Amino acid sequence: MNYFEAGSYDVIVIGAGHAGAEAALASAGMGAKTLVLTINLDMIAFMPCNPSIGGPAKGIVVREIDALGGAMGKVIDRTHIQMRMLNTGKGPAVRALRAQADKVLYQAEMKRLMEDQDNLTIHQAMVEELIVENGEVVGVKTQVGAIYRSSTVIVTTGTFLRGEIILGELKYSSGPNNQQPSLKLADNLKELGFDLVRFKTGTPPRVNSKTIDYSKTEIQPGDDEPRAFSFETTEFIVDQLPCWLTYTNEKTHQVIDDNLHLSPMYSGMIKGTGPRYCPSIEDKVVRFNDKPRHQIFLEPEGRNTREVYVQGLSTSLPEHVQRKMLESIPGLEKAEMMRAGYAIEYDAMVPTQLWPTLETKKIRHLYTAGQINGTSGYEEAAGQGLMAGMNAAARALNKEEIILSRSEAYIGVLIDDLVTKGTNEPYRLLTSRAEYRLLLRHDNADLRLTEIGYKAGLISEERFQRFMEKKETITKEIDRLKTTILKPNELTQSVIQEKGGTALKDGIRGHELLKRPEMNYTDIVKLSPSPFDLTEEMQEQVEIQMKYEGYIEKSLQQVDKLKKMETKKIPDRIDYDAISGLATEARQKLKEVRPLSIAQASRISGVNPADISILLIYIEQGKISKISS
Amino acid sequence: MNYFEAGSYDVIVIGAGHAGAEAALASAGMGAKTLVLTINLDMIAFMPCNPSIGGPAKGIVVREIDALGGAMGKVIDRTHIQMRMLNTGKGPAVRALRAQADKVLYQAEMKRLMEDQDNLTIHQAMVEELIVENGEVVGVKTQVGAIYRSSTVIVTTGTFLRGEIILGELKYSSGPNNQQPSLKLADNLKELGFDLVRFKTGTPPRVNSKTIDYSKTEIQPGDDEPRAFSFETTEFIVDQLPCWLTYTNEKTHQVIDDNLHLSPMYSGMIKGTGPRYCPSIEDKVVRFNDKPRHQIFLEPEGRNTREVYVQGLSTSLPEHVQRKMLESIPGLEKAEMMRAGYAIEYDAMVPTQLWPTLETKKIRHLYTAGQINGTSGYEEAAGQGLMAGMNAAARALNKEEIILSRSEAYIGVLIDDLVTKGTNEPYRLLTSRAEYRLLLRHDNADLRLTEIGYKAGLISEERFQRFMEKKETITKEIDRLKTTILKPNELTQSVIQEKGGTALKDGIRGHELLKRPEMNYTDIVKLSPSPFDLTEEMQEQVEIQMKYEGYIEKSLQQVDKLKKMETKKIPDRIDYDAISGLATEARQKLKEVRPLSIAQASRISGVNPADISILLIYIEQGKISKISS
Repeated sequence: MNYFEAGSYDVIVIGAGHAGAEAALASAGMGAKTLVLTINLDMIAFMPCNPSIGGPAKGIVVREIDALGGAMGKVIDRTHIQMRMLNTGKGPAVRALRAQADKVLYQAEMKRLMEDQDNLTIHQAMVEELIVENGEVVGVKTQVGAIYRSSTVIVTTGTFLRGEIILGELKYSSGPNNQQPSLKLADNLKELGFDLVRFKTGTPPRVNSKTIDYSKTEIQPGDDEPRAFSFETTEFIVDQLPCWLTYTNEKTHQVIDDNLHLSPMYSGMIKGTGPRYCPSIEDKVVRFNDKPRHQIFLEPEGRNTREVYVQGLSTSLPEHVQRKMLESIPGLEKAEMMRAGYAIEYDAMVPTQLWPTLETKKIRHLYTAGQINGTSGYEEAAGQGLMAGMNAAARALNKEEIILSRSEAYIGVLIDDLVTKGTNEPYRLLTSRAEYRLLLRHDNADLRLTEIGYKAGLISEERFQRFMEKKETITKEIDRLKTTILKPNELTQSVIQEKGGTALKDGIRGHELLKRPEMNYTDIVKLSPSPFDLTEEMQEQVEIQMKYEGYIEKSLQQVDKLKKMETKKIPDRIDYDAISGLATEARQKLKEVRPLSIAQASRISGVNPADISILLIYIEQGKISKISS
Repeated sequence: MNYFEAGSYDVIVIGAGHAGAEAALASAGMGAKTLVLTINLDMIAFMPCNPSIGGPAKGIVVREIDALGGAMGKVIDRTHIQMRMLNTGKGPAVRALRAQADKVLYQAEMKRLMEDQDNLTIHQAMVEELIVENGEVVGVKTQVGAIYRSSTVIVTTGTFLRGEIILGELKYSSGPNNQQPSLKLADNLKELGFDLVRFKTGTPPRVNSKTIDYSKTEIQPGDDEPRAFSFETTEFIVDQLPCWLTYTNEKTHQVIDDNLHLSPMYSGMIKGTGPRYCPSIEDKVVRFNDKPRHQIFLEPEGRNTREVYVQGLSTSLPEHVQRKMLESIPGLEKAEMMRAGYAIEYDAMVPTQLWPTLETKKIRHLYTAGQINGTSGYEEAAGQGLMAGMNAAARALNKEEIILSRSEAYIGVLIDDLVTKGTNEPYRLLTSRAEYRLLLRHDNADLRLTEIGYKAGLISEERFQRFMEKKETITKEIDRLKTTILKPNELTQSVIQEKGGTALKDGIRGHELLKRPEMNYTDIVKLSPSPFDLTEEMQEQVEIQMKYEGYIEKSLQQVDKLKKMETKKIPDRIDYDAISGLATEARQKLKEVRPLSIAQASRISGVNPADISILLIYIEQGKISKISS
């Protein structure tokens, strides 16, 4: 191959899936001259698996991405076919939005956003090699011999890296949806010394809507109330499509049991580790063999298609078994299978090879983000992509790096978990992974993160002003409620009585009355109208902040403690072998993860409180300065 | 591989490009239980090359497809971004519509039409083998081991059959747009004894609209007047996008000359034969080296994308040369190349192996259609797909086969050329290929073919009634004009004078006055208002039929002569070796093509009038009956 110089950039992004798209937009949005290289431009922001974005924890990540200035929220707001707020009956910490996407429109909209973005060049090309000089990445080489130079490179290869599709007896080299896989780059990453692991994920069959008997299923409509992920969304899609719910049954499970010997999962053909929280149906049937049925959601793949995604039936069993499974499910007895489900195996990086900025420890200025880091899910990918894009641009432009803490964002939890604990299976974000989940709410994502996005240059001046007004109004209203005393007069008593509460004996401050379980913000303002103009969202925010004040306070105190630990930095060049008294396992793990702070060190499994104490003393004695200077 | 039975159909269509989509819709529309199998459902009706449909001859094919009940016209009417009537200044025979397509919407719309179609099952699968028993195809086998049984099979593999992408030094196995190629089916077709040839086609680079300096180009807007391909279209897209015109220049040609040694066309890496009428830019520069410039049209690929197709710059030169070429063109100096141009080589059938129904001669009930038959162009593919679909369904349902003659339709010309003459390069339909082009007009496609589509069951009753009313009104109005005598009164003379014509001396029949070059139908009805309610289209039809009556008559007489020849059938089992006196070349070609009629025999190159006479005498002497009985 004759190589040629094809240009020079601040940031090169390899891949344009959910991680790559956010990385490229963020980097270019921050002013870095950015190039995105992808194998097939028609696969930008493609959804190879479920046609939905959001849900528990994930929906909050989308709000966080939006608050930081990312794209996913905006794009799904414009292209969904259904929007639902989940867990409205539960506490605010677990509420989350989920949207059903129009896959084709989502892709088109994200692609156009990228095409329009200043400083961003989009080019279709297969990257085969990273150019590394003195431990630092300085560019890439493509299949056609093009050499692109750059200050930083972000790898977001998703499931393309040495991808193999597996379906029954069949196994062949392929990216998702029969796309060209990325082979040489996988070899190159290995040669560069990275530890790669083999993960797998799967997808269910799709059926034709016209062949479904919906009368045997339960309708799952969207919300009537218009909602959005993005702070910027002002137009709402009114016309929503329903999803439908059905169930597997004994017959389905019998079909699976009878054919387990044909499963590449159990025959040993699949060697990669699958996602625990998104198991295949054969996995569910084997692991939970006492469960008489499993939920199956029928989700339309878009507005102008009859393809329906059979959520819950992810499988790599042979096609003829998949057909029998469908036949056994109420409503799908005569469903025509448009695509069979399949599993895909791919190479992923061991994520403890990364710093919390998502830069690799081995190769400076090289970042990885998304599924390559061992996660599953579009939202987890997008969140990492955004952070990698921001950090690579920051590095290239000599700006400050951005690391979100576990108390600031689910994205912080996600990345900290990855780089600190690693993962031996595709990692999915769950609310249970966040110790401060009462702080990391759907409703306050903008309040938590907009200022960071603004400082990075990803939030427009106009939006930021609007945001500051919102924030200020909420603060003023809370202050007002805290200083307003409501007297036990006739009006007050009647409103309280109406809600079935206990009558007042003395005057009470507004926020104290609001804390009563039966009372809402709207009740309080009946008694003391607000002089400020609060939107519904602001009212909700005031209510949540007051009602949960006690719990939130407690969380914040814990965060304060954590912050002290976080500020106890561990110098990069610490020599763990020189610290006597550390347990062998702790020493080994510390050397591998190389935590940046005592807090991070304490989260490494195998590093015990005793080890932390030794480490603290060692650092506080100032021995480190001699080593790191 | 463990094989399993996956269902039984009347017609199986392999592939769902422009040929496959029409074949599947037509077959299912006629009531045949139809299955379409395609490697990737997201590639249904994909446009790997230019984002436009129609143009000279091709536009008339789209009207013919519509008149027969096909889909292409309807779909492009709903999804275009620009519509233009070409050659409005020239005679009606060369007028044609051309639409710029929104590629993404076109695909989505065609896919949904197919998903909605009764009797049609769509399934994603790679067909690896045809099941042939006793010289008859009876089913197919797919990559996952599924066996589908069927009465007939239509192969529409386009450029996927052993496809190889070539770009500079790079050559790799691939379908268009980096899709999985079809390899085993190519081997299978060879094993079955088919002659395959190697053809190639190419595509130009795409650039980002935001990086084009349009001030250096000429705008090419769409028509203001709303027009449509389909008889059924009643809603017109008002908001049209312009295209833009620029030119190559000496600098561009110098870049190409300087780098010709790097061209896989000239280095011998490309062995396939390319399309003469759609040459690469390097080909144009070499073949027409006195031409100072070539036209370059900048065509948007859709409404919601910034990708722009650089029509006229098809090339397989290395990417760095393509970049230099772009830099040399006014308006594109700073254009960012989003995708590089490339050539693709693929296997095609020698089309003389087909009957005029598109059934193969070697394997009964097996049909091939589209680019596999050696054509280029979406419209040529769709026209063949439609006819193959109709004929396969007719065969399966025991209905009459449908062969369009050269005087009935461009589709007839296309198929007759292919099966009679063969082609040694990708075949493109041109108006010059049609000897009766005055009969094969854009404006009368519905009048020519709707009855055939209706009889086949592809035209709805409602549409047919509307069509019959149109036809009747035109006939009645023509009859009226032919019997109406316009007197040389004051009104008549003033209208004639206004148009600059010679005053009447005597009365004149309406249609005779209309034949005067300066007179239009609207002038005539000023003098003699019609009692019928004629739409603009009907008025145009009356005018064309009257104005060109003499030429049309002459053409029709020639057609009558041809028809006599066409009715002289040649029995299938004729033994050409038994006919003494035939020239060796004629004998050889007749044995290869096996023409169905004397007319078809006369069109075979190498079969001379003397051979035809001998053949005629032989058949008329009745000798054949002994042989064929």
